[in-house]
Amino acid sequence: MKFEKMHGLGNDFILMKDFQRNYPDLAKRLCDRRFGIGADGLVIYSSCKNSNINADYQMRIYNSDGSEAEMCGNAIRCLAKYLAKTEETDGKRLAIATTAGIKRVEIVENFDLMGEINLSGMVGSQEQLVKVNMEKPLLKSSDIPLAVKNDRNDIARQRPIDTPYGIYYLTEVSTGPPHAVIFVQNLLPEEQLLELGPIIEKHDLFPYGTNVEFVKVESSNHLRVQVWERGAGKTLACGTGACAVVVAATINGFCNGMAYVELPGGKLFINWDNNTEELYMIGPAEHVYSGELNNQIFY
Amino acid sequence: MKFEKMHGLGNDFILMKDFQRNYPDLAKRLCDRRFGIGADGLVIYSSCKNSNINADYQMRIYNSDGSEAEMCGNAIRCLAKYLAKTEETDGKRLAIATTAGIKRVEIVENFDLMGEINLSGMVGSQEQLVKVNMEKPLLKSSDIPLAVKNDRNDIARQRPIDTPYGIYYLTEVSTGPPHAVIFVQNLLPEEQLLELGPIIEKHDLFPYGTNVEFVKVESSNHLRVQVWERGAGKTLACGTGACAVVVAATINGFCNGMAYVELPGGKLFINWDNNTEELYMIGPAEHVYSGELNNQIFY
Repeated sequence: MKFEKMHGLGNDFILMKDFQRNYPDLAKRLCDRRFGIGADGLVIYSSCKNSNINADYQMRIYNSDGSEAEMCGNAIRCLAKYLAKTEETDGKRLAIATTAGIKRVEIVENFDLMGEINLSGMVGSQEQLVKVNMEKPLLKSSDIPLAVKNDRNDIARQRPIDTPYGIYYLTEVSTGPPHAVIFVQNLLPEEQLLELGPIIEKHDLFPYGTNVEFVKVESSNHLRVQVWERGAGKTLACGTGACAVVVAATINGFCNGMAYVELPGGKLFINWDNNTEELYMIGPAEHVYSGELNNQIFY
Repeated sequence: MKFEKMHGLGNDFILMKDFQRNYPDLAKRLCDRRFGIGADGLVIYSSCKNSNINADYQMRIYNSDGSEAEMCGNAIRCLAKYLAKTEETDGKRLAIATTAGIKRVEIVENFDLMGEINLSGMVGSQEQLVKVNMEKPLLKSSDIPLAVKNDRNDIARQRPIDTPYGIYYLTEVSTGPPHAVIFVQNLLPEEQLLELGPIIEKHDLFPYGTNVEFVKVESSNHLRVQVWERGAGKTLACGTGACAVVVAATINGFCNGMAYVELPGGKLFINWDNNTEELYMIGPAEHVYSGELNNQIFY
């Protein structure tokens, strides 16, 4: 059984063509970092050619614990880059069906996307990036959702909460999952992140918990971010989180809808389109190696 | 660039043929579990055919931090099994030159090694195991070495030391690296292992630190072990540690020179030969997959 190993900002995936198997069990075994291949998730893809799905390809994502993820920005960038290079695709644009709907992706060759932002400093100048339409963010308390009633400030911004480290101000955005974005003067020391992350993740405000991002505004088009992911803790990067950060920075006046977001695992460029209100994420995906499993072990 | 991924009891390695490169740097990059292949170490091997080394193959082991390891029981089992299957080898016996000298290894097909021990319960009944001559243990205080003077009890056994959890009795053995073996009524709760491990590792008795093994004697040929490795902390398995445990159990009268040692990552069969005083380790090695690196990333 052949597979590809790729990562997007250090969020790493095993890519395999669909072969009708018990994927939750396989994901657990293959994602094990010592006894298996090792990855954050298993991506199973297939062509939609002979199906009635109105997309080019279809993907499913299984986490290392065997649970299924609806959608993952880092995983879809990996798959798109791999498909555009190796499969028969109609140009550089692809529609990929996920459990969270059909996503439109595009391979981007020209990095000078904003003019004023020097994107060649963001990534290797020859590197192909992947652009993903992440759709519209949700900003209303009832949509995120937040456990608040009669909320006067329907778009939730700079809501104070008490923590052992003092008062923090949350701006809440849903870009698929919920995010609590907090602007700080300085990024947090490790131990403070590890303590505050779970407190905010499980705060009463969020009936289903929340992802948390701490953001230092370096300039109006450069945001530095620490990520605390719901259920996963401190991670290297979060695509929906980077999108939420640019939305939160824009509605608070720190940014004008476009910025590159510097995460511990690397950088993403985010554009919140003024007209359509749709979010675009542009970022790298790296193919690390091709592999072939030892069948004696995995069958 | 092609490679093989294998593990011995969850201690996992990338195997590559020698190609004259800066291996410390490569090991760091390839062993990274998110941006690279992911492994505990990189094993570089070459044939000794056209060299003046009196062995079949030569190996070098680089840890994930780029440092070089002299020898590793789990790594040499992996390499031996791979070479015996794929390379032109003269039967099932191999001499492999390591930085710690030439090691003799053998592929073992017959599992009923001891008669009274049912080894088919130890491993899958069809599985090939690898037998490694681990040479003679060192038992004298000056050889291990221990920082003791005028030690009446020259062979160090059941030496009491004070810890926050009370008195523990150490039996010290060198099987390459030093080991402090402690027999316990019950294996330790996680937090106690994490606290006691570093206290004993860095105890004044050991001028260069020590590995630590906590051992529950299940029967005279079945020992259950928790491992704390010097510099690495809690690990899944340690080949030299399993050898040290059987030596320590034998000199304390718990065992008769032969036992299988149950580690968190799996089982090893150890035989301390009564006549030659040499140690033999017999254990599994699994080939997980073959890979080919994306040259654009690693060159």
